[in-house]
This record gives sequence, structure tokens and C-alpha cells, in this order.
Amino acid sequence: MVRNACYAQSGGVTAVINASAAGVIEAARRNSDRIGKVFAGRNGIIGALTEDLIDTSVESDAAIASLRHTPAGAFGSCRFKLKDLEASKREYDRLIEVFKAHDIGYFFYNGGGDSADTCFKVSQLSERLGYPVQAIHVPKTVDNDLPITDTCPGFGSVAKYVAVSTREGSFDLRSMSRTSTKVLVIEVMGRHAGWITAAGGLAADDEYDIPIVVVLPEIAFDEQRFLAKVKEKVDRYDYCTVVVSEGARHADGTFLAEQGTRDAFGHAQLGGAGPAVAQLIRRGLGYKMHWAVADYLQRAARHIASATDVAQAYAVGAASVEYALAGENSIMTTIVRTSSKPYTWEIGKAPLSQVANVEKHMPRDFISDDGFSITQACREYLGPLIQGEDYPPFRNGLPRYVMLKNEAVPRRLPAFTL
Amino acid sequence: MVRNACYAQSGGVTAVINASAAGVIEAARRNSDRIGKVFAGRNGIIGALTEDLIDTSVESDAAIASLRHTPAGAFGSCRFKLKDLEASKREYDRLIEVFKAHDIGYFFYNGGGDSADTCFKVSQLSERLGYPVQAIHVPKTVDNDLPITDTCPGFGSVAKYVAVSTREGSFDLRSMSRTSTKVLVIEVMGRHAGWITAAGGLAADDEYDIPIVVVLPEIAFDEQRFLAKVKEKVDRYDYCTVVVSEGARHADGTFLAEQGTRDAFGHAQLGGAGPAVAQLIRRGLGYKMHWAVADYLQRAARHIASATDVAQAYAVGAASVEYALAGENSIMTTIVRTSSKPYTWEIGKAPLSQVANVEKHMPRDFISDDGFSITQACREYLGPLIQGEDYPPFRNGLPRYVMLKNEAVPRRLPAFTL
Repeated sequence: MVRNACYAQSGGVTAVINASAAGVIEAARRNSDRIGKVFAGRNGIIGALTEDLIDTSVESDAAIASLRHTPAGAFGSCRFKLKDLEASKREYDRLIEVFKAHDIGYFFYNGGGDSADTCFKVSQLSERLGYPVQAIHVPKTVDNDLPITDTCPGFGSVAKYVAVSTREGSFDLRSMSRTSTKVLVIEVMGRHAGWITAAGGLAADDEYDIPIVVVLPEIAFDEQRFLAKVKEKVDRYDYCTVVVSEGARHADGTFLAEQGTRDAFGHAQLGGAGPAVAQLIRRGLGYKMHWAVADYLQRAARHIASATDVAQAYAVGAASVEYALAGENSIMTTIVRTSSKPYTWEIGKAPLSQVANVEKHMPRDFISDDGFSITQACREYLGPLIQGEDYPPFRNGLPRYVMLKNEAVPRRLPAFTL
Repeated sequence: MVRNACYAQSGGVTAVINASAAGVIEAARRNSDRIGKVFAGRNGIIGALTEDLIDTSVESDAAIASLRHTPAGAFGSCRFKLKDLEASKREYDRLIEVFKAHDIGYFFYNGGGDSADTCFKVSQLSERLGYPVQAIHVPKTVDNDLPITDTCPGFGSVAKYVAVSTREGSFDLRSMSRTSTKVLVIEVMGRHAGWITAAGGLAADDEYDIPIVVVLPEIAFDEQRFLAKVKEKVDRYDYCTVVVSEGARHADGTFLAEQGTRDAFGHAQLGGAGPAVAQLIRRGLGYKMHWAVADYLQRAARHIASATDVAQAYAVGAASVEYALAGENSIMTTIVRTSSKPYTWEIGKAPLSQVANVEKHMPRDFISDDGFSITQACREYLGPLIQGEDYPPFRNGLPRYVMLKNEAVPRRLPAFTL
């Protein structure tokens, strides 16, 4: 029996989520005896709910292959969280209705923790409503906070971007510190977990003696201890690079970014942990400092993606299709580390019931006692994830990312208001 | 007659200034019958003044070759401006004294406008004092504001970084705009000239229909016209990327970054044109927005350097040595564009008397009438400068940049206080 598939991208996009899309679509095309068309939700689950589906079958094999080197969400993503089955029953019912109308037997949801939860509920509800859909979660999040899987596709590339940028920024500082800037503060993503910030620590190693201080959300920020650490580094090296999480917070839970600042008109002012920390350093230590906020540039930086991450993102997409064809339902496809040295990994799976609503933080033994650097255990974990370069093709000096046609599938149902 | 050379790096470093250093040192090594050692000033001209010279002859050929792919200033740079001959006579005299003490007959000064001026004065003074030193200026500045030369080494790479990041950030926005961020503001360098900001405009072209608004320092910022332009883009595309110069300013000359903001303690607050513009958009149009400030990351990003820029940086270094050996003095080595399509260039020279204290701004015909985008003429100028990729070698997932030994040359003179 040939049934169609629905694929949707969810939440903040990454440099490699489209590699997962390529994995799903190419695996489906290889199994055309069992999977008909792959429909993508336009703007993620919103497209699935509003029956705004994209027909990926009109895209050439070359266009789909190009997704592997194209950042961001080719079909659009969204921030739209379904609540529990009772509160969002109307939406879950509608999803099943859309699946029925388009003979969709496979649902591949590509996202982080919230979408794993949605995917889990879809798998429960479809059974209950007597319209079985195999719901498989394809992991994705730069935050690296999904449980069970060794890592989350998207993270390795942002980690590589941050590690590379921290090394490069440190070289710059080191050149100039005699008469100019002594401290560069780099603010990175990861509101709840410090994985991305920790990656900044990789810029220093046995070969590169670079002074780096990390400020993780897992460790309560202590201004005096922080300033003392920065001073210690500057006294010794004449410069220091600080990598701070956007989610860094004080012991009372308030974010560093919440500075309570007001502009000349008395309006509450935009924060940012990076500028806040830089300001502290200038005021507390008197050093000339600079700050950078990479924001979306870090998660969109496909030009410096980790080859390991790209391979894993593709693999979880393709394996999700294979799992579905093998009869699996209500699982998340995972990455299993089989060895750190040499680094080897394989594909695995986890029941969605064990994934939903669990957030993986940095283990305490990945963080030095003083809280300002990463340990050898952390290096052994992170190191392999940034290995290898996987450059996109370039044309006219710029990366040649694909823009798909994104043709709509004709609607068969009445409109649905979100 | 064999004489030594002094090479010094000046001002803000770039992704390719070390490629110029490699050009100078390798050309000198090829001419060992006429050039003895190349001494580098530690931390630029400060090292030359304080007789803190680095002996580059102890570095292996491989280490010097690695400079070609290493960002920032391998010998240290500085922000230290010599004034005119009268006000800084003590310093100029000292320079000549150091040159004499170390039998230095060639002075290669690698920097922007201020150092061109210093180099010019050294060339005048050495003649006047009867100790001839051939002073050659090796151009370098991400600001691209030196006159006569078609472009300035360092600029092409930062332009490529900004164009690539703008395209990537736009792909991210485009994926998410349905329910999340509609405007991404990217703040870039270039306090006086909009060259770097203009490069953001290259992210859109015939193939990539991406809505980009540039905010250049050359065009007085008009809040209402700006907001209307952003709204026009969002109405049409559902998103918009804004690239703003750190030096963007109002008609009265005040910088956008000067927001007059105070924190909770009443302290004057860090500005930033990027956050300021983002705030305006949120307040004036109500869009969800994000902002990024690339800061030093953009000028240190050797991992995404322009191959054209690397080649030109190396070439001006090597050619400066050839010019010196041909008897030239008091010149800046330049890049001469011989054709835009196909792009061809050659090395030239300009008298330093015509270089010092001249700043090259964006011509008005490179900017659209409304001031918010770049013209075809600008594209034809900028396009070739970002061509080609020149990736550094990687190890353990990170670029393998060289750290030199930087051994000191024994001092021969009494100490000198700056």
C-alpha cells in the first residue's frame, strides 16, 4: 500500500535542518513503492493545520540534493506550540483530518523538545481516532538539549561557528591589546543550556594557549568572582575573550540581559547579556572592551557547518523514513555515540514518551570547579561534533543556497482558523 | 649592499594583513643578496620606537607561508598615531635612530590612512637627516577608504563575510517570519565610509530576491523614511534584513549609537547602531526583530576570506619589496583595476604625498536615490572583490592559524619612553 508522507519543520531553524529534509525526501523517493508524495507543511505545523501543504514531488532531484547545503527552513518553520490533548483537541483533530484528506500515513516532525511533545500526541491520537499515522520525530535544535540522543543536529554547526569565531576574535584581540581592546565579549545562543557557550572553550587547546572565560546559564553569575577571573587572565595574557550565554543569570534567576535600562525617552531598553557583561568589565576593571552578538548569524552559518553535523542531520532524516517503513511509530530517531576516540556513531531510536518534556543540561563535570571554563570530559564530548568542513558551492563569491518552488497542494477541506 | 628591513603592522587588524606580511618576508628572502633580515616591530610602530624588534629570520619558511592563511596581526599592531614632524619630532628622530642602529634601509608600513601619513613623514625625515631609508606603505584597511588604490586589502574579506552573513541571516528570517521575527538588523563596521555596509547589499541579486535595506554613514538617517522603507519590504516579503553601519548618523551629525541611554544606576549605557535601529523598528512598526553585531568577528573571519583579497594582500606585500629594490621611496603600493568584466587587476604605486590624509567615500552613484540600496555601478565595483574562497587548513575542526615565535632582536640603544 502506497501512502503519502507529511514533513514539517518546527521552531528555530538551523544550518542543517534542510539536510534532514533532504534525508527524508530522498529516502522516500528511494521507496516510491511504499511512499507516494512527501508533502511539506508551509511554515511548519501551521501549514499542516491550515492545509497549506507544499508538494515536494515537483522539485528536481538536484534541488532536493541542494537542501543538504542550504541553511534555514526551506519550507518555512514556525513558533506555534500545541498544548495538551484536551486544550488543543481542535488542532489535533484537524491534523488527523488533513492527514486523512491527503492520504498521509507518515508524519515526520523535525524539531526540538516542544515538537517532540506534539509528535508524541499525534501518535497517540491517530491510534485513538482509528486513523493510524506513523509519527516519527526527527531531532533538531541548536540548543542540544534533547534527551537520549548523543547530540542534536544543528548544534554541531553552531558549536563550530562559535569555536571558530572565538579563536579568530582572540587572534584579533591578541594583536591589539597593547594599546587597544583587552576584552572581547561574544554573546551566543542557548537560553537554558550552556552547550553553545561551552563550544567557545574549544578555541583554546594544547596548541592554542588562549585565555577564554565562559559564562554559562547553568552557573549563577557572581560579578566579583567573574571580574576577578577576567583580571587574572588579562594580567597574565594582556587580553581575554569572554563567551557568554544569552541566558546567563544571577543567583536570583534574573537574566544578565535584564538591565533595567531606559533610553533618553524613558523607554525600557533592549538588553543583551553580551553588552551587559562588557559594561561590567569596563566599569569594574577599566579595560577597553568590545562586544559581539552573533544572534541568527550563528545558527544560519551554513558556510562553516560541521561536516559531522551535516552527515548526522541527513542520516536522522533518512533513517526516520526507514524506521517508518519498518513499522515504527511514536519514536525519535537518535544519534548513538559508539566511541569518542576515534569518534564513531550510529543511528538509534527512543520512544517519544521518554523524550517529551525532558531537557538535557550540561553535566556539572563538564564545567570547571570555578564555573568559568570547560573540562577535559566536555572537550571529549564536544570535540568530535565540530569535526570536518562541508562547504556549500559558491557562485559570484556567495554561497549558492537553493530556493525551492514550494508549490501548493490543492486544498480538499474547508478553511481552518488558527 | 645588504641592508635590513623593518616591517610594522598598524591600526585595526584584518583577515589578510598577515598575507601582506608573508608577501614582504618571502620577497625579502628571495632577495637575500640585497635584503638581510626583516625585523618586525612588536605591536607595530611602538616596537620600532622602543627598539622592541622581532627577528623574523628565525621563523621557518613554513611558518611564514602560514601567515597567508592566518588572520589578525602576527607581530602585534597598535593604535598609536604620530603627529606632524614638529609635534612628534622626538618620535621621528628615534625611529631613524633605531633604523641606524639596526642597519635598516627599508621600512614597510602596513596600515591605513594614518600610517600612510607616518610613512610619508619618515620618508621625508630620513632624507633630511642624511640617513636614507626607503619608506613604502603597504595598504591595509577594512574600511576601504584609502585613495588611488582600487581597493584596500582587508576590505574584500570583510565584505565577503558581511555579504555571506546577510544572505544566511535572510534565509533564516524568511523561514520564520510567519510567526516569529520579521526584521533582522546586522550592524557592521565602517565608521566613516559605507563600503562594508554596501557589501550587505550583494546578498541579493538577480537570482536571490531578498529584501535588504542598507543604512550608510554617507546618507543622513531619516527615521520616518527608513521606517516606511522597512514597512514596504515587510508588506511585500513578510520580512526584511537591515544592514547598518556602526557610523550611521542623523542629519545633525549625531550617531544613531548615541542613544543617551542610562542603566538602572544612571550610568551612561553602551550604544550600538544595530540595537538602536532594531528598537526603532519595534517601537515604530511593532515587528518582532532581532539584531546582530558582528564587531571583530567580521574582520577576523579568515575562514571565509575572499580569495581575491588574499591574493591582493600578498601581492602588495611582495611588490612593495620589489619597488624598494627598484629604488622607490615614499610610495604606497596600489591595486589597479584593469577591467571589471572579466575582473583583472595589476599592481601599481602612488606617491605618498597624494595618499596622506585623503579619505575615499562611497560615490553617490553607488547609492540608490532613496539611499537604502546599492546601484548596479556599486555591484560592478564590489562584486569582484569578494570572489573566490581561500579556506585555511583545519585541524580538530578548527582553523590552524600560526602563532610565531616572535623572538626579540637584542637591543643596542638606551630605552625610550613613549
